[in-house]
Amino acid sequence: MNKIAIAVHGGAGPDSEHIKSNIEGYKKGLEEAISKGYKILEKGGSAVEAVEAAVKSLEDNPLFNAGKGSALNSKAEVEMCSSIMSGKDLNSGAVATVKNVKNPVSLAKAVMEETKHIFLGGRGAMSFAEEINIPMEPDSYFITEYQYETYEKARKEAHGKQQPKARAEVNEKMHGTVGAVALDRNGNLAAATSTGGTEYCKEGRVADSAMTGIGSYANNQTCAVSSTGEGEVIIQRVTAFQVSAIMEYMNLSLQDASSYFMEEKCKDAKGDIGFIAVDTEGNVSIEFNSERMHRGYKTSDKEMWVGIYPPEAEAE
Amino acid sequence: MNKIAIAVHGGAGPDSEHIKSNIEGYKKGLEEAISKGYKILEKGGSAVEAVEAAVKSLEDNPLFNAGKGSALNSKAEVEMCSSIMSGKDLNSGAVATVKNVKNPVSLAKAVMEETKHIFLGGRGAMSFAEEINIPMEPDSYFITEYQYETYEKARKEAHGKQQPKARAEVNEKMHGTVGAVALDRNGNLAAATSTGGTEYCKEGRVADSAMTGIGSYANNQTCAVSSTGEGEVIIQRVTAFQVSAIMEYMNLSLQDASSYFMEEKCKDAKGDIGFIAVDTEGNVSIEFNSERMHRGYKTSDKEMWVGIYPPEAEAE
Repeated sequence: MNKIAIAVHGGAGPDSEHIKSNIEGYKKGLEEAISKGYKILEKGGSAVEAVEAAVKSLEDNPLFNAGKGSALNSKAEVEMCSSIMSGKDLNSGAVATVKNVKNPVSLAKAVMEETKHIFLGGRGAMSFAEEINIPMEPDSYFITEYQYETYEKARKEAHGKQQPKARAEVNEKMHGTVGAVALDRNGNLAAATSTGGTEYCKEGRVADSAMTGIGSYANNQTCAVSSTGEGEVIIQRVTAFQVSAIMEYMNLSLQDASSYFMEEKCKDAKGDIGFIAVDTEGNVSIEFNSERMHRGYKTSDKEMWVGIYPPEAEAE
Repeated sequence: MNKIAIAVHGGAGPDSEHIKSNIEGYKKGLEEAISKGYKILEKGGSAVEAVEAAVKSLEDNPLFNAGKGSALNSKAEVEMCSSIMSGKDLNSGAVATVKNVKNPVSLAKAVMEETKHIFLGGRGAMSFAEEINIPMEPDSYFITEYQYETYEKARKEAHGKQQPKARAEVNEKMHGTVGAVALDRNGNLAAATSTGGTEYCKEGRVADSAMTGIGSYANNQTCAVSSTGEGEVIIQRVTAFQVSAIMEYMNLSLQDASSYFMEEKCKDAKGDIGFIAVDTEGNVSIEFNSERMHRGYKTSDKEMWVGIYPPEAEAE
């Protein structure tokens, strides 16, 4: 029987008191997401279905910054972005700045499967969501106490400084993303990524998570990758695809390509960056330069493992 | 004195009666865009300024599908997308589905230079446009007789078939983009791309032109690239960045990397794809698989040249 594998992440970034006091909850959330995706793979389901299920599970979990629990923008609104890609045919789907959609990853999948388009944003994406009757929730569903408090702190800070630039200064400090990559029994790869954006960002900010090739990339010839961290750093490096390009054009293994990317292409990175990746042999690769990255995996060869801090701090 | 170079394109796609009857107008438009960009480079201006000026010139020209003359979506609205990238620092800016902004490329440049963000979409992008007082125009400014007729034809076709899928069938048949790449006296590269989208597309369709790494990519270590053609084909191949990745990881010249990309990575492409590229030595590379690609260049070494049909049909 062919190997199967799934890896998930819940964002790379700085450590915080909020994380420290919710470690068990975060680990449980990662485990649930892995289990949901892995079960689909075990039953012969597709990698696309598995990454969707894993990301949905993280979107539904209020601890993670995607779906329920998304960050609030500077207008105190939740705008979400997601992308998904199938390694078999290189088809992809993405949505940007959608509101009220319970699972943005499922809307991205519907764009991939049910339209001639790849990427829909804003009101147009929401019209499509209504057209296909995808589950919607009121604003209050998405806003958690923690994200509201974070917003209020940022708003007061921005207001207190009474400078237009203050807003910018509080931007992008926190970031969160969720994502999954999978290999199914048929040897097909898939990747999906979803985010609630960055706290107190401008209305209409499109996240790197919504960009195929940058947030998510999957290609059966190489690997599937989902990235996380600071948008600027991730976009500058065309992160998800770059891992695949290094594998292909330098003829390296997934692990060597991942290390090369992190050590050579990210050595001067002025910000957090991380990614999870899987190849068609079921090898999983995880790299990050940040204080923590919520992450985990389960494969035909390896028991489930989840961790938050760097390898030296976790029993991997 | 260091070399300078600029190349522009006005879209790759199928030939049409409209193109055939406007050949001189299209060539004049390409020449004007090249001249505007080249003058900036001659005076020591930056590659970023040169590509902005060239793209603005094409956006202002009603013959090209960007800015004035943009395609109408299925709601008869003009929604425009643009991206710009600086090869010196890998900074980039992008806007998606903006309305009424006279020059989307200038808004993308403002996102790059004046915000902490990289990519803004829809209403948020338009709030930012108002904030910085960028020139706006009423809807009527953007809609040309030709694009309105094209819309009407598509609408009747979609309506006549009385099938939801009919809309999809008329989508993506026509496409148009404009773009520019440049090398300045300081050895810096830049790329910019702008589009009015595809005729009769869904509201909220985000074009590949808005995606850094796919529509536009620039890196002083390799090259600057602007792509055009069918969104799906371009996104699947992470087109702009892929040319750079092939140069870097296969250690090929710009010309060899461009040929390799077109011959190897696009040999099975089920759609139109094309790109213009320039490296830090002022070499220009142009490739496309479509019936025509509006394109041209001028460099320190070569006189201005513009063409529309494949090399064998044009005196290059």
